[in-house]
Amino acid sequence: MWRCVRYNLAIWWMMNNFKHTYAVIMAGGGGTRLWPVSRKERPKQLLPLLDDKTLFQSTVTRLENFFPPERILVVTVTEQASEMQKQAPEIPLENYLIEPAPRGTASVVGLAAAVLKHRDPDAMMSVLPSDHFIRNRDLFHYLMGAAFQVAEKGYLVTLGITPTYPSTAYGYIQQGEALDGEFKYPVYTAKRFIEKPDEKTAQQLLRTGDHSWNSGMFIWRANDILTEIEKQMPQLSDAVSQISEAWDTPRRVEMLDSLWNELKNETVDFGIMENADMVAVLPAGGLGWSDVGSWDSLLEVLLPDMNGNIAQNAQHLAIDTHNSLVYSNDIQRLVVTIGVDDMVLVDTGDVLLVCKSDQAQKVRDVVTHLKKHRQEKYL
Amino acid sequence: MWRCVRYNLAIWWMMNNFKHTYAVIMAGGGGTRLWPVSRKERPKQLLPLLDDKTLFQSTVTRLENFFPPERILVVTVTEQASEMQKQAPEIPLENYLIEPAPRGTASVVGLAAAVLKHRDPDAMMSVLPSDHFIRNRDLFHYLMGAAFQVAEKGYLVTLGITPTYPSTAYGYIQQGEALDGEFKYPVYTAKRFIEKPDEKTAQQLLRTGDHSWNSGMFIWRANDILTEIEKQMPQLSDAVSQISEAWDTPRRVEMLDSLWNELKNETVDFGIMENADMVAVLPAGGLGWSDVGSWDSLLEVLLPDMNGNIAQNAQHLAIDTHNSLVYSNDIQRLVVTIGVDDMVLVDTGDVLLVCKSDQAQKVRDVVTHLKKHRQEKYL
Repeated sequence: MWRCVRYNLAIWWMMNNFKHTYAVIMAGGGGTRLWPVSRKERPKQLLPLLDDKTLFQSTVTRLENFFPPERILVVTVTEQASEMQKQAPEIPLENYLIEPAPRGTASVVGLAAAVLKHRDPDAMMSVLPSDHFIRNRDLFHYLMGAAFQVAEKGYLVTLGITPTYPSTAYGYIQQGEALDGEFKYPVYTAKRFIEKPDEKTAQQLLRTGDHSWNSGMFIWRANDILTEIEKQMPQLSDAVSQISEAWDTPRRVEMLDSLWNELKNETVDFGIMENADMVAVLPAGGLGWSDVGSWDSLLEVLLPDMNGNIAQNAQHLAIDTHNSLVYSNDIQRLVVTIGVDDMVLVDTGDVLLVCKSDQAQKVRDVVTHLKKHRQEKYL
Repeated sequence: MWRCVRYNLAIWWMMNNFKHTYAVIMAGGGGTRLWPVSRKERPKQLLPLLDDKTLFQSTVTRLENFFPPERILVVTVTEQASEMQKQAPEIPLENYLIEPAPRGTASVVGLAAAVLKHRDPDAMMSVLPSDHFIRNRDLFHYLMGAAFQVAEKGYLVTLGITPTYPSTAYGYIQQGEALDGEFKYPVYTAKRFIEKPDEKTAQQLLRTGDHSWNSGMFIWRANDILTEIEKQMPQLSDAVSQISEAWDTPRRVEMLDSLWNELKNETVDFGIMENADMVAVLPAGGLGWSDVGSWDSLLEVLLPDMNGNIAQNAQHLAIDTHNSLVYSNDIQRLVVTIGVDDMVLVDTGDVLLVCKSDQAQKVRDVVTHLKKHRQEKYL
């Protein structure tokens, strides 16, 4: 019954808005927190971390039955573009927007909104990271539908994630008063965006009950976000306006070259959303969402055995072992653990990482150390 | 000065007993406790576990300046003989005594004593395992000299090791009254041989102050141990007497074939020493001895860094890591540990073992499991 209602909402949205809703996948990131599997040449989104699909492919697949491929845009960087086009050949080539260099999510959003508006003045867009995990696709579609409803009223909408523990790895959004508008899901004004807190602050935020994790997923009219950018970031506004006009012409490269590198590196959250007027948040529980931002997050995302262990592409003989992840790239290799608790083991050919799961964030320090000591071959 | 005295004793022994003191290295064992480095085809003693020498080679080297190579015998099994001969070519071929099949240390000792006595009726012998570690070679020579002195009086001598913790991995020897005979080291009668105890018993044994670990090193006249074997194990006595007479003749194989396989599998300790009359023990402290019997023992034997970590043939980046051993066969591979304490990591090409160091004894269970599940390729 409930499934039925959800499905119908999605259908209803597809029928009514078929021509003007777009997904924009942000896919240019680097990231070092899933080293040594994620490498300079093979960033996280291009890897089959959780199953036989890469995270980018799963993000595209998740959009099936909601956005047709021709209404999916991918913003990425030169180094990753051709691999992405290989991984998702159903997306038309002209929908890959290639940045000359990363300039923060504010620039990504500005560029995508401007190009979209130029192609379709009524465009509504959903901005989605390329490398997150969502278990409950059905609910995700429902929330997209509900969020587009709110965006239609002129709101800049963000999906919040109801926190399940005091994470220090996520930013937070504080909700304000409830919005009443015959919406299909609880909607609140967004009162405040909060950067990744320390543990004590995170515990306080959870206790208030009105804070969500910032998922990095946004839904709005292209025109509304461009208006907001015009107000708050006039340089970006000018640049993307000129670039978008040249985008589908031979002058694209020339415009990009002259304008892109001058842009400030800013995030959507703090460059735009923080000071925007009509910002709404849908606090989503039960999505089964993770940003797959560190090795311990795989212990939440993948399904463990009775002892809490997960063996991913690994032949694992576990003796007196609990809540541990063995991640290998060689199924022929036998991994034996004895008396091991709360541990992450990552075995790529040239590197072996053994890490207490609550210290998985320190993998970044390893990458820093290797850079400093010029051990580039491991990066 | 002290070094001088020790050295002089060794010299004195060499001069006085040059022709009649022999070392017998027992080198036929299999053993599974150092899996996955030690394998069916590559038992522990044939491996360079601690440095660039194999344990067998180190045992032979340890005898330099005390026993010349022609007075070192090696008892081993067919499968290992040619590799040993390659590793210690200085030992004459006729000094390798090859058992058709393992029949316990009592048979090894009986065979070696009988062959030695046949070659030299005045032979005195020191029986030594091939796969143990001794840091203090100087003291080892001193103790050998002292022990031969005691053996000259007709005693069956055993070296005890002063325990430094309540080990459950070693057998124990209880000492009786002190022997007075102008010896160069404290000597006691051996009152009782005790099999590997449980932890509670081990703690009680240590508290008494009169128990040593059983090192498996013995010193005696060949004739004295043969007399004892004749009393207690007449079948073995008969067999080794007949075999030894045929040993240096073309009839060796025939005699071995007809007699060896009938022998009971017995240890020296419980088959002979336990009920022998004149048994003496020298309780040695400070030898730096280990039977290298499990992975955690390497944490005692090898020299750790400030944090108690040891990287053996491994490139180890240790972050917040303590008292852990990383043992690899590939120095090109980078091993990173974060938040890891008291852990043993052993990385051979086809197997990765991660084991809490106080559970290293369970490696045997892994081997049992692999046999049962017919995963012979990992054994």
